[in-house]
Amino acid sequence: MTRMRTIEWKDGTVITIDQTKLPNETSFLKMKKCSQVATAIKDMKIRGAPIIGVAAAYGLALTAHHSKAREKRELMRELKQSAEILKKTRPTAVNLFWAVDRTVKKAQETSGSAKAVAKAVIDEAQRMADEDVQANRKIGGHGAKLIEDGDTVLTHCNAGKLATVDYGTALGVIRAAWEQGKQIKVIATETRPKLQGARLTAYELKSDGIPVTLITDSMVGYVMSKRMVNKVVVGADRIVRDAVVNKIGTFSIAVLAHEHGIPFYVAAPISTFDLTRSSKDVVVEERNPEEVTHFRSQRTAPIGMKALNPAFDITPMKYVSAIICETNVLSPTKLKDLQRLGEFKS
Amino acid sequence: MTRMRTIEWKDGTVITIDQTKLPNETSFLKMKKCSQVATAIKDMKIRGAPIIGVAAAYGLALTAHHSKAREKRELMRELKQSAEILKKTRPTAVNLFWAVDRTVKKAQETSGSAKAVAKAVIDEAQRMADEDVQANRKIGGHGAKLIEDGDTVLTHCNAGKLATVDYGTALGVIRAAWEQGKQIKVIATETRPKLQGARLTAYELKSDGIPVTLITDSMVGYVMSKRMVNKVVVGADRIVRDAVVNKIGTFSIAVLAHEHGIPFYVAAPISTFDLTRSSKDVVVEERNPEEVTHFRSQRTAPIGMKALNPAFDITPMKYVSAIICETNVLSPTKLKDLQRLGEFKS
Repeated sequence: MTRMRTIEWKDGTVITIDQTKLPNETSFLKMKKCSQVATAIKDMKIRGAPIIGVAAAYGLALTAHHSKAREKRELMRELKQSAEILKKTRPTAVNLFWAVDRTVKKAQETSGSAKAVAKAVIDEAQRMADEDVQANRKIGGHGAKLIEDGDTVLTHCNAGKLATVDYGTALGVIRAAWEQGKQIKVIATETRPKLQGARLTAYELKSDGIPVTLITDSMVGYVMSKRMVNKVVVGADRIVRDAVVNKIGTFSIAVLAHEHGIPFYVAAPISTFDLTRSSKDVVVEERNPEEVTHFRSQRTAPIGMKALNPAFDITPMKYVSAIICETNVLSPTKLKDLQRLGEFKS
Repeated sequence: MTRMRTIEWKDGTVITIDQTKLPNETSFLKMKKCSQVATAIKDMKIRGAPIIGVAAAYGLALTAHHSKAREKRELMRELKQSAEILKKTRPTAVNLFWAVDRTVKKAQETSGSAKAVAKAVIDEAQRMADEDVQANRKIGGHGAKLIEDGDTVLTHCNAGKLATVDYGTALGVIRAAWEQGKQIKVIATETRPKLQGARLTAYELKSDGIPVTLITDSMVGYVMSKRMVNKVVVGADRIVRDAVVNKIGTFSIAVLAHEHGIPFYVAAPISTFDLTRSSKDVVVEERNPEEVTHFRSQRTAPIGMKALNPAFDITPMKYVSAIICETNVLSPTKLKDLQRLGEFKS
């Protein structure tokens, strides 16, 4: 595992790992235009709610850095165009909208020349990247208290370093417990159709020397029934008042954990909270059915096969044991605490 | 879909479709030796509990047909050797053991020359193939009564024509309902790691013109929560006193169906019943972890990745709404009825 952050800003270039090529190939994307960032998000070369937020902010920073605008008004127009492009990439993870709005707001509030505004935008994006790393470390610290020596923790998809600027949310909890010397094991679900578990979580944990075993998504019930799992920790793409929105398959795992009396934890920064909304307001992204009928470029189903491909599902709070964020561990039934955090965020 | 049976006997040759190559290629296996049948079962070129049983009987028929034994005693020794090889192929589906024992017993009970015994073995295998087709038609008839016009039925793996000699068990129920003019739809899970849903169920139903939509195994909770599923029908590899053993992922689907109040039906012939045993007696086959870390020959996980690969899971009867067999629809809580059937079988 490279020691660099998953995404970095370097003199007007945004550098990140192409996540579609892992684990077989470590290939870096070097982007100079916001539209390149937008395409990378859409194609899931950059994926994971927290990093999508920071990448979007960096996308605006690219627009600001390379702008030839002389007046603030002109730069603001360019930034708003970039913001629109970014917001159209993926509809579900709220961090994207939060990061774009926060960055544009910062630009708006900055007085002075276009150059001064551009600098403020770049600084804000950098600040958000730094904050993400700090938040994940704190999430790790809070979450590690819930993990006991000897536990086997099941996780879904990838809520790791690769889904964030560094360290990870769900994998941050696992890393922090491991760094505290707790002898834990991890079961990673492969996470069809895009295999983030097999490709990314397996890769991250293996690189860190944390024992990890891969299963197909269909084996979750089996490993729980065999008492091979003590805890579940996943990330989130959006946390609304009544539910957690996360990678497709999360809801099934939550129901199975509930049925087996296994704690189900969600680890996510406050930037993922969207508490003025409820699950009925959430647009679940439908991706290309070929991701399901094909395996990479290889067709597995008959020609012309119809398929569904929702990228996320919705887990009602009754299945969630606790939400681990950077400030503390929240009970999902204590909605008041969550509301307060929602206010704190905005 | 070819109109031939999935497996056929023709003058000392057993002919079947290589199921690992579907749907992209229709390739036939022509086997003259029992050991070829055993290898085909082991490699899942022949898969599905009912057809595995019939294939094993045909394997013994090949031994009998091509034997040069002059005395019955000599032929019995050869048949018992073949029986041992067949029984070592796959440990979970009980139909295999049932079919082998029934065929060997038939040989034992037949008096006369080696030739007369060989003929009895071949006839018995043919009879079992015919009985399987009849049983599936009856299962279809009983099961179709449970399916209503307008239903969307979810099925897992492949319990179709390809898993049997013809018509199918779970897909037999779906076919019978369709043939009765009920406008139904099917959701098929892809069924990792071997993709029997994407490759085989999708292929069968599409060929028959029955509307079918493919999902990944991780989408089951989602489609149920969106009320897109009215019934679940699956097959079985073994039905013990307290549980149904079937393709990995079945248990998760059963729990999710239970949570959503969706009926969960198991369609299987009596040859699948093993009512003198309970779930603790069942050996769940562990297959090569490379089926999980790879996609066909393409590696998806990091090199050296550890993985689990149980081929089956165990669904306690509390999650099963009814068992559809060739004699009637059974309530799984009425164990007495099941016991009686168990006796009826042996």
